[in-house]
Amino acid sequence: MNVQFINPFLDAFLNVISTMATINLTPGKPMLKHDEIAKGDVSGVIGMVGEQAKGSLSLTFEKRLALRVMHNMLGEAPDDIDEEVTDMVGELTNMVSGGAKRMLGELGFEFDMATPIVVAGKDHTISHVSRGKKIIIPFNSMYGRAFVEICFEE
Amino acid sequence: MNVQFINPFLDAFLNVISTMATINLTPGKPMLKHDEIAKGDVSGVIGMVGEQAKGSLSLTFEKRLALRVMHNMLGEAPDDIDEEVTDMVGELTNMVSGGAKRMLGELGFEFDMATPIVVAGKDHTISHVSRGKKIIIPFNSMYGRAFVEICFEE
Repeated sequence: MNVQFINPFLDAFLNVISTMATINLTPGKPMLKHDEIAKGDVSGVIGMVGEQAKGSLSLTFEKRLALRVMHNMLGEAPDDIDEEVTDMVGELTNMVSGGAKRMLGELGFEFDMATPIVVAGKDHTISHVSRGKKIIIPFNSMYGRAFVEICFEE
Repeated sequence: MNVQFINPFLDAFLNVISTMATINLTPGKPMLKHDEIAKGDVSGVIGMVGEQAKGSLSLTFEKRLALRVMHNMLGEAPDDIDEEVTDMVGELTNMVSGGAKRMLGELGFEFDMATPIVVAGKDHTISHVSRGKKIIIPFNSMYGRAFVEICFEE
């Protein structure tokens, strides 16, 4: 996987969460995924297809962080992950993949996006299935952790 | 969503599970997704992008059925959902979307596929996020249930 692909997703995720929810996430070091696993309570995933490469993006949130993002965006949040929260995570997934798509376009890589899917379930794990390398970026905040994972094959 | 899209996915799923694992699934009636939710222990999801439509496919298995499919394909299976099982579900997702892609091509709808993502976690739920209608098809077997869900927007 082209390492140029990493920063657009990292930057888009930071921008979206900071702009929409005024939460500043602290990114950890992007890692090749071997033992590290994206694990959380709600995830948005989306497929991306281009001439030069195809792949997938996932955003995974711990519950407390997802509910805090919801609270900061809408002024209120439920106590648990419900349909409103999954809709919000789907929208965030569209925004992050859209932001990354624009930045990748400036680098000469054009992608079309599929539609997002949101997964809810305590402590679920996400595995991208591809011949390409998997990159996972952990994020910390005072409300809990998030993971961005990308995988592209050329 | 075009109703012509339903049968290719239904048929491809039945074919793949019957051919690879010699398990005959009994399909229920395809339903518009309102209250019915795809809930299971391991899911494969994949994005599909075409000129006329874009969307997403998910296959969701209850654990006992996923382990039985694994057992029948490889002659043995672990006691729980591990990396071998998630790899197998990723491969099944590629096979079902590939089979449906061929049938859709014969109907005049061309799609490119993204790469699959597999989710593991007890009783997780799957929500397709799209303006298009969501169709869910339940399947029964003596080893447990599976769900195929598709969602396309044109």
